[in-house]
Amino acid sequence: MTLEEKIGQLGSRWVGNDMQDEEEVDPEETLNVAPMQDVFAASGTIPLDEASRHGLGHLTRVYGSHPLTAVEGAAEVVRQQHIVLANSRLSIPAVVHEECLTGFTTFGATVYPAAIAWGATFDPDLVERMAAAIGRDMAAVGVHQGLSPVLDVVRDYRWGRVEETIGEDPYLVGLLGAGYVRGLQSAGVIATLKHFAGYSASRGARNHGPVPMGRRELLDIILPTFETAIREAGAESVMNSYSDIDGLPAVADPWLFTELLRDRWGFTGTVVSDYWAVPFLATTHHVAEDMVDAGIQSLTAGIDVELPDTLGFGQELAGRVPEELIDRAVRRLLTQKVSLGLLDAGWTPEKSVAAAAGTDLDSAANRALAREMAEKSIVLLEAGSALPLAAGLGRVAVVGPAAADPRTFMGCYAFPNHVLPRYPQAGLGIDVPTAVDALKSALSGTEVVYEQGCPVIGDDTSGFAAAVALTESADVTVAMVGDLAGLFGHGTSGEGCDAEDLTLPGVQAELIEALLATGKPIVVVVVSGRPYALGSLSSRVAGLVQAFMPGEEGGAAIAGVLTGSVNPGGKLPVQIPRHPGGQPGTYLLPSLGAENTGVSNLDPTPLYAFGHGRSYTTFAVDDLRISATEVPTDGEFTVTVRVRNTGGRAGDEVVQLYLKDLVAQVTRPVKQLTGFVRVGLEAGEARDVTFTVHADRTAFTGRDFSRIVEPGDLDVLVGTSAADLPLTGRVRLTGALRVVGDRDRRLVTPVTVEKV
Amino acid sequence: MTLEEKIGQLGSRWVGNDMQDEEEVDPEETLNVAPMQDVFAASGTIPLDEASRHGLGHLTRVYGSHPLTAVEGAAEVVRQQHIVLANSRLSIPAVVHEECLTGFTTFGATVYPAAIAWGATFDPDLVERMAAAIGRDMAAVGVHQGLSPVLDVVRDYRWGRVEETIGEDPYLVGLLGAGYVRGLQSAGVIATLKHFAGYSASRGARNHGPVPMGRRELLDIILPTFETAIREAGAESVMNSYSDIDGLPAVADPWLFTELLRDRWGFTGTVVSDYWAVPFLATTHHVAEDMVDAGIQSLTAGIDVELPDTLGFGQELAGRVPEELIDRAVRRLLTQKVSLGLLDAGWTPEKSVAAAAGTDLDSAANRALAREMAEKSIVLLEAGSALPLAAGLGRVAVVGPAAADPRTFMGCYAFPNHVLPRYPQAGLGIDVPTAVDALKSALSGTEVVYEQGCPVIGDDTSGFAAAVALTESADVTVAMVGDLAGLFGHGTSGEGCDAEDLTLPGVQAELIEALLATGKPIVVVVVSGRPYALGSLSSRVAGLVQAFMPGEEGGAAIAGVLTGSVNPGGKLPVQIPRHPGGQPGTYLLPSLGAENTGVSNLDPTPLYAFGHGRSYTTFAVDDLRISATEVPTDGEFTVTVRVRNTGGRAGDEVVQLYLKDLVAQVTRPVKQLTGFVRVGLEAGEARDVTFTVHADRTAFTGRDFSRIVEPGDLDVLVGTSAADLPLTGRVRLTGALRVVGDRDRRLVTPVTVEKV
Repeated sequence: MTLEEKIGQLGSRWVGNDMQDEEEVDPEETLNVAPMQDVFAASGTIPLDEASRHGLGHLTRVYGSHPLTAVEGAAEVVRQQHIVLANSRLSIPAVVHEECLTGFTTFGATVYPAAIAWGATFDPDLVERMAAAIGRDMAAVGVHQGLSPVLDVVRDYRWGRVEETIGEDPYLVGLLGAGYVRGLQSAGVIATLKHFAGYSASRGARNHGPVPMGRRELLDIILPTFETAIREAGAESVMNSYSDIDGLPAVADPWLFTELLRDRWGFTGTVVSDYWAVPFLATTHHVAEDMVDAGIQSLTAGIDVELPDTLGFGQELAGRVPEELIDRAVRRLLTQKVSLGLLDAGWTPEKSVAAAAGTDLDSAANRALAREMAEKSIVLLEAGSALPLAAGLGRVAVVGPAAADPRTFMGCYAFPNHVLPRYPQAGLGIDVPTAVDALKSALSGTEVVYEQGCPVIGDDTSGFAAAVALTESADVTVAMVGDLAGLFGHGTSGEGCDAEDLTLPGVQAELIEALLATGKPIVVVVVSGRPYALGSLSSRVAGLVQAFMPGEEGGAAIAGVLTGSVNPGGKLPVQIPRHPGGQPGTYLLPSLGAENTGVSNLDPTPLYAFGHGRSYTTFAVDDLRISATEVPTDGEFTVTVRVRNTGGRAGDEVVQLYLKDLVAQVTRPVKQLTGFVRVGLEAGEARDVTFTVHADRTAFTGRDFSRIVEPGDLDVLVGTSAADLPLTGRVRLTGALRVVGDRDRRLVTPVTVEKV
Repeated sequence: MTLEEKIGQLGSRWVGNDMQDEEEVDPEETLNVAPMQDVFAASGTIPLDEASRHGLGHLTRVYGSHPLTAVEGAAEVVRQQHIVLANSRLSIPAVVHEECLTGFTTFGATVYPAAIAWGATFDPDLVERMAAAIGRDMAAVGVHQGLSPVLDVVRDYRWGRVEETIGEDPYLVGLLGAGYVRGLQSAGVIATLKHFAGYSASRGARNHGPVPMGRRELLDIILPTFETAIREAGAESVMNSYSDIDGLPAVADPWLFTELLRDRWGFTGTVVSDYWAVPFLATTHHVAEDMVDAGIQSLTAGIDVELPDTLGFGQELAGRVPEELIDRAVRRLLTQKVSLGLLDAGWTPEKSVAAAAGTDLDSAANRALAREMAEKSIVLLEAGSALPLAAGLGRVAVVGPAAADPRTFMGCYAFPNHVLPRYPQAGLGIDVPTAVDALKSALSGTEVVYEQGCPVIGDDTSGFAAAVALTESADVTVAMVGDLAGLFGHGTSGEGCDAEDLTLPGVQAELIEALLATGKPIVVVVVSGRPYALGSLSSRVAGLVQAFMPGEEGGAAIAGVLTGSVNPGGKLPVQIPRHPGGQPGTYLLPSLGAENTGVSNLDPTPLYAFGHGRSYTTFAVDDLRISATEVPTDGEFTVTVRVRNTGGRAGDEVVQLYLKDLVAQVTRPVKQLTGFVRVGLEAGEARDVTFTVHADRTAFTGRDFSRIVEPGDLDVLVGTSAADLPLTGRVRLTGALRVVGDRDRRLVTPVTVEKV
């Protein structure tokens, strides 16, 4: 390969993004991202044949840029691949990548629940099955790489991208994220772990904002999710975080992408840049003189492929960086193209999309998976006096914008929220029953009536009166409030939609107050991408449900939970705070951040703790058995408990094991989730759950920044949420302090569930 | 000295703290600090003679623990020193230390404005004069060391201790802090720089909470204030921060206290622990097994003397740490005792307090200084339509709790707020005219009437109606709202009084809304220790004044500003945010934290910027002259501007120089205060202000963590606030990148002011 041809492989082209200029786009709804305008201007007009003159690494978002059917998209893939093949000497096909966080991000494809809802299922296998279905659909239409999952650990609920994460605990995120990777890659589609690393912890939760973080927090809280998805699931690609940590943007950080990811962890896949993260070094971070300087810094740090267009990784790199650096990146990408079969004899663009015509992107099987995940993700915060809704109610009022707008069920990377707002004439492309429709079906014999009350966004209270009147007229009112996801200020949640505080958006909190003032029973369902402060509500409502954006089958799932045909078993992957100020943030904090120690007046305890979720049946967790009281620092022990369904109907409980390190070299979280399993039990049924805990699972980053297992006492805490841990025992780790290896550390706590 | 005698010097005893058990203490008002209860229990009952059996390092807060006159306090000093002398073989007197943040913290002493108000003066000389007066009073009554100033740089306005800081800019804090040190030490009283380091940036602004911070932010934002006070003012003592940074509590961090402070900076004074910070390693941080382990870790890190009682630094240290570590600490303390004259022949406890009887702790000279600082600290945010109050008004209504409660003028370390709430029968000990009284005096011929409306704390709205009626009856209403400082939940500001968000405390915001609803002109005066969100108010009021807790002369100063007899010239040392969520935090952030870049929907710009403050006259700043367009990386340049009083009366303007580094190795603040001077000008008068900027003043911590001056372009910005910088120029730093030394770096930008 010539140097030009090598450099060509490092780049990409987003042909579809040119569509922004077409007249069908509503000018009010285009992205309004100032730093992107510069880079759009630099790349937007380069024809694909020119961009691929020396070959091309990736084709960007052929499907996810404007409304195309699977067949139209396949034709566009073929067209673009042929241009790449025809215009370069070596005729190497491009990797076709697409977003796929809540499903394949294309017109007419299934919209699964948002990632934060996966977290609420506590069910890695279900996430894996969903991702396998997503991967099969993508592979069928010629897509090679999916830009998911998001493995950021939530650190501030105000951040707009909380909905894209799996939650605030690295073990939960890591295990479910690994499930996603296994599923997607089982279909031959490369998974992309993002965002490496630290994005979620920006100052004031501003998107792209500076991240104040020390290396210990990075190593102990932020990075283990990536380690888990790479080590346990073989993830083949990683994408950078936009943010800087303590002044150094991730994309320019060789410690992250080379020393840690490659040299220490042994990662052998590709690192792709987040969109425009390379030029952003010049345009928003101001640590590079220009785009070429930005490219040099990024390539040097360890970025292999620039997305979505070639701006910093262009031919200007020639002679500006050591050729070994270019070789290093090209070798990684070409190895991946070989693995994908792109260099096989007989590969053609047409063959790569051969299955497109026969693929139903919103098949019944997909919808069943979407339904299962939606049902398993809904969290019953309080059954209250009204839930499940009694049979034979005369009139049920449904109020609130989330009850009748299908988009409120979807994350910001769902095609209907991500792209379709720019194409108002296109429709949703999929059938999304509303909660009102689903409740009408579920409550036959009961009159179900609806008033919006107010929109999600804005201060329009003109609908309050009708909503209050409806509430007065009904036996029970279900108020469904929450988020409308969008991009860059076009929603209340999602990328670029950060929150000033954790008050419900718009006038929805006032709407609920108006309904409560009637004195009638009000059930509140929050359909959101982040937790909102419910401290002023929880004791006054007749039932409280948290439905994280539940996807296209969300209406039926919510109706099922409200009516009791579905027994909720979801658990909070993020805490629900008391106050809009959001204290304390997440549960994974040391005593001075998480407990009332008297030195701050603020109560840091949550309204509903991490892991909380009720059921229409009851469970008992008891009979704690720990295999040893002393365990060497390289040993393991088992923790067994019995979980029993003590109520009258089948249901799921998530048995949760936490460890508490009593004294350590550095401050440690007051408790940390170390094992969990979701168990389905018939009424009266019991199971023994056994966690096998290796001492590695207690490892942390010590004072000298090595990862250590320290001798000393651990409290073993078992129960059903971070705040409900009735079973406590103690294990002493004995022997020498042990430094734990980067490549052999046990990252997982195996769990067995046995009938008793 | 025997080992026991050496160890004895490392400890301290707070005899006065035993008073907590006396019956005169209101049990409702004692500190409710759980972690302290353990350590109280461990130390509270040890008699002083036992505690000083082998000598004693410090006597803790003889004056500041309960109401004593100067003469009573002096007698108690004599009594305690005699016990120390009599019970130990070597008869070395103890260092007597006391708090002195807003003045000598003792009964009847002058209460100066809170530190955040010093910041608003932008006047280092005035701070120095005030501190000299404080020091003289303390020295006269036998106090050797003052536990001030606080050099923490504000990072989150919700933190309760914002009022104790000088502001959010390290240069402002460093320069004024150095002034304080010079003043206090000019009287022979050792100043104590605190809190070393990082305390202000805790997660969620929780007091003592974990601090997520990288080393670059620590080096560039947090530590320069300490460097400045040590290098420029010769500060002789340093106190630790309670918090951990990224898991390691400061008090156990040898990098901070030994490598950086001693080995690199060359500090030769003493390091004292903050109260109970040593045992807190065991009881709140859980990084030590017990108090002795905590003592070992602290001594090893570089803490020399434990305050306020000997818990970790007791005789149990013997044999548990290398004797060199004990020697190191003892040598530092004894060197200081020698310097203080405590080991001079003929020193007696009686002589040390000989001036007590003749000292008026609230002298007329003190009061004049307190008045000057109060007047210079008040910030006119907007004159609006009503300020200054017109002559000949018929009736002025004054509303709000800050107008008539003297305690609202005082910080949490002022004796009336710090101690007297436990002694309700003692009175204030000083005369503090209220703003209502002062307005009555100032507005002769105008009827001035008062209603409280509501208290600072709590949700009592029963006074709204009377306040509204009064407003209806008046020509103009002055609403004075804000904080009541206290300790650990007993106030809205102060140590342990953090805020959930930046809404005015209690129902004060609702009170103002009720007043505004009358349609009458409302002037709002915020008397507070932190900035509150005023975004919803600023366009609707008839005048807006920010008075940071202005001390015992605050009433007259506020009345002076309102009536125009004082022309306000104070400038904001912290920004005023728009929204209670507090975005953006402080001004010193890179573009992605401080500017609308389009990637977050949240507006990060403040309502009133750092450095903002209006006047009853007008100023022009123009005629920018920069001495060079290119300057070597070890060179300097001058920036000259002309400031003119273009209005009709005398006034003060603060001319502010900011630099902006256009491209750097790491993200840099969008601008950074690099020089300032407060200039008093008669009407029509002009001055040339010249800043001499050494290239060192552009230094920052680069990618490899060395402090560097980098070649490249700088924007030079001059004006009167961080948001009002009409004069811009450019200087290019040329030559090689230069690493800047720790001990010779220029920390100050000299300024000259010349008549023209």
